[in-house]
Amino acid sequence: MSTAAWLHGLDLAGVAVFAASGALAAGRKSLDLFGVFIIAAVTAIGGGTTRDLLLDRHPIFWLNDPAYLVTIVLAAGATVLVVRRRPAAASPGRPLLVADALGLALFTITGTRLACEAALPLPACALLGMMTGVLGGVFRDVLSGEVPLILRRDLYATAALAGSLSYLAAQGLPRPVPSLLGLGVVLLLRALAILRGWRLPIFRLPEEPR
Amino acid sequence: MSTAAWLHGLDLAGVAVFAASGALAAGRKSLDLFGVFIIAAVTAIGGGTTRDLLLDRHPIFWLNDPAYLVTIVLAAGATVLVVRRRPAAASPGRPLLVADALGLALFTITGTRLACEAALPLPACALLGMMTGVLGGVFRDVLSGEVPLILRRDLYATAALAGSLSYLAAQGLPRPVPSLLGLGVVLLLRALAILRGWRLPIFRLPEEPR
Amino acid sequence: MSTAAWLHGLDLAGVAVFAASGALAAGRKSLDLFGVFIIAAVTAIGGGTTRDLLLDRHPIFWLNDPAYLVTIVLAAGATVLVVRRRPAAASPGRPLLVADALGLALFTITGTRLACEAALPLPACALLGMMTGVLGGVFRDVLSGEVPLILRRDLYATAALAGSLSYLAAQGLPRPVPSLLGLGVVLLLRALAILRGWRLPIFRLPEEPR
Repeated sequence: MSTAAWLHGLDLAGVAVFAASGALAAGRKSLDLFGVFIIAAVTAIGGGTTRDLLLDRHPIFWLNDPAYLVTIVLAAGATVLVVRRRPAAASPGRPLLVADALGLALFTITGTRLACEAALPLPACALLGMMTGVLGGVFRDVLSGEVPLILRRDLYATAALAGSLSYLAAQGLPRPVPSLLGLGVVLLLRALAILRGWRLPIFRLPEEPR
Repeated sequence: MSTAAWLHGLDLAGVAVFAASGALAAGRKSLDLFGVFIIAAVTAIGGGTTRDLLLDRHPIFWLNDPAYLVTIVLAAGATVLVVRRRPAAASPGRPLLVADALGLALFTITGTRLACEAALPLPACALLGMMTGVLGGVFRDVLSGEVPLILRRDLYATAALAGSLSYLAAQGLPRPVPSLLGLGVVLLLRALAILRGWRLPIFRLPEEPR
Repeated sequence: MSTAAWLHGLDLAGVAVFAASGALAAGRKSLDLFGVFIIAAVTAIGGGTTRDLLLDRHPIFWLNDPAYLVTIVLAAGATVLVVRRRPAAASPGRPLLVADALGLALFTITGTRLACEAALPLPACALLGMMTGVLGGVFRDVLSGEVPLILRRDLYATAALAGSLSYLAAQGLPRPVPSLLGLGVVLLLRALAILRGWRLPIFRLPEEPR
């Protein structure tokens, strides 16, 4: 298998994982089956779509490659079938968290790489990489009427940003060292967040008197 | 009247109807008059704007044609005036539902047609068509702080998708058969949903234990 | 200092002010420190980013100029530090309101000017100008799970629209009269809204019987 095919496969794996997480979120809101697919699609392609719009990359990555939409339908459908038989599988257990971390890592590094190839300054590369990783989940939460989890969860967007910055800092090294380093940093920070409960300090204001 | 003028007129009719539905939604949230116009505009042009951004069609359809914004202002203004005199008109009765179904059908088929003209694969054409039809309403609901109605309503996005797929399946037939078929499928499914209560199964997960 | 540098400085001042207002909004939601920066960034660049996407202006204004992201980080960081020491500073007092009005005025006129330079019809210029001014705050509220304040606040989006229209009406006059007039109208209406409580009538529908 060529490198390009391998990367495409990883990309589709990330899409599948995020589609499954979107389907689970939709299930908690009692949406109909079609709403489930919509939330799954938004979660899976929201981050990359925003990245492509901001970078003026056309056609948007999923428009010309049916594999993405097919993957989303299959992943969301499988999630619904599995959860209907075994509702316990819906609780976000270890497998889902591992897969979600992989998707976050892959999307973040892909986004950072594409921004670098567009010759943007480093802060913009880091921000675009992080956005590619986290925005799908943000859209999922906004559509479901939730305050985006990303905004208060344990080292989630922070893990994406750290991975993106590691990738950028290692640009002098031979390929594929920067990518592997970036992926590793995201996965490591997610593991620490999940296993050890690492998190950032909360910024809390007192209630406003009225 | 030429075909182009006729299509433009239908398009404006769809915009007017969606603007009125946005104004009604705003009225339920006690927004000020200006907020009413904003929600009306977002509902009316949100779907087509997203379609144009994703397809890289510039200028965005309403930027160069003042008729769209004028129509929105007139439709939202008329809605406010009518509802103030006869509040009973605000309950979403038969006329509004018929008009809304027409708008949904028109926008869905327009979006599918434009995606086809951009030579996209069929799944992307269907998704873009559906998005053109339903996204204005999604934005309206998100701005109003609601879980998008589209995601749980009776055969709404589903009707749009079915119409889009019918249009695509009939591409071999002479014009305007595909368009008429697509429009007819959307309207028929909406009629069944409204008159017979047709809906998709709900996908409901048990509450997570905490 | 050249005119361009002066305008760029004013633009950055607007970004800083909106970043601070985003950070304060995030503090009321008990987000973590990183969420604070995200909300600050969305508030500060959301309006201009949407404007650039709609006008097909690439690269998006902040992608190639690191000064914007640096300003956001500094302004949000300073806000957190100040508010931690003196929580009373978090109540939206006179200084913040003045600064926010300045940012609204500057972004509105910039957006209107760029739309005019793209030779759009007047209604589109006015709408794009207003959107540039207010959309950052709308995104901030949607991400925080609030009904956008802009939609019910006292003469906020209305002030932006009035400023944009004044700028357009004065196009025959020598520069920089139109800009100064537009800025002045926004600031005046905001002052009347804040000091005198000027607001538009509310459009309220009765609750729907169910």
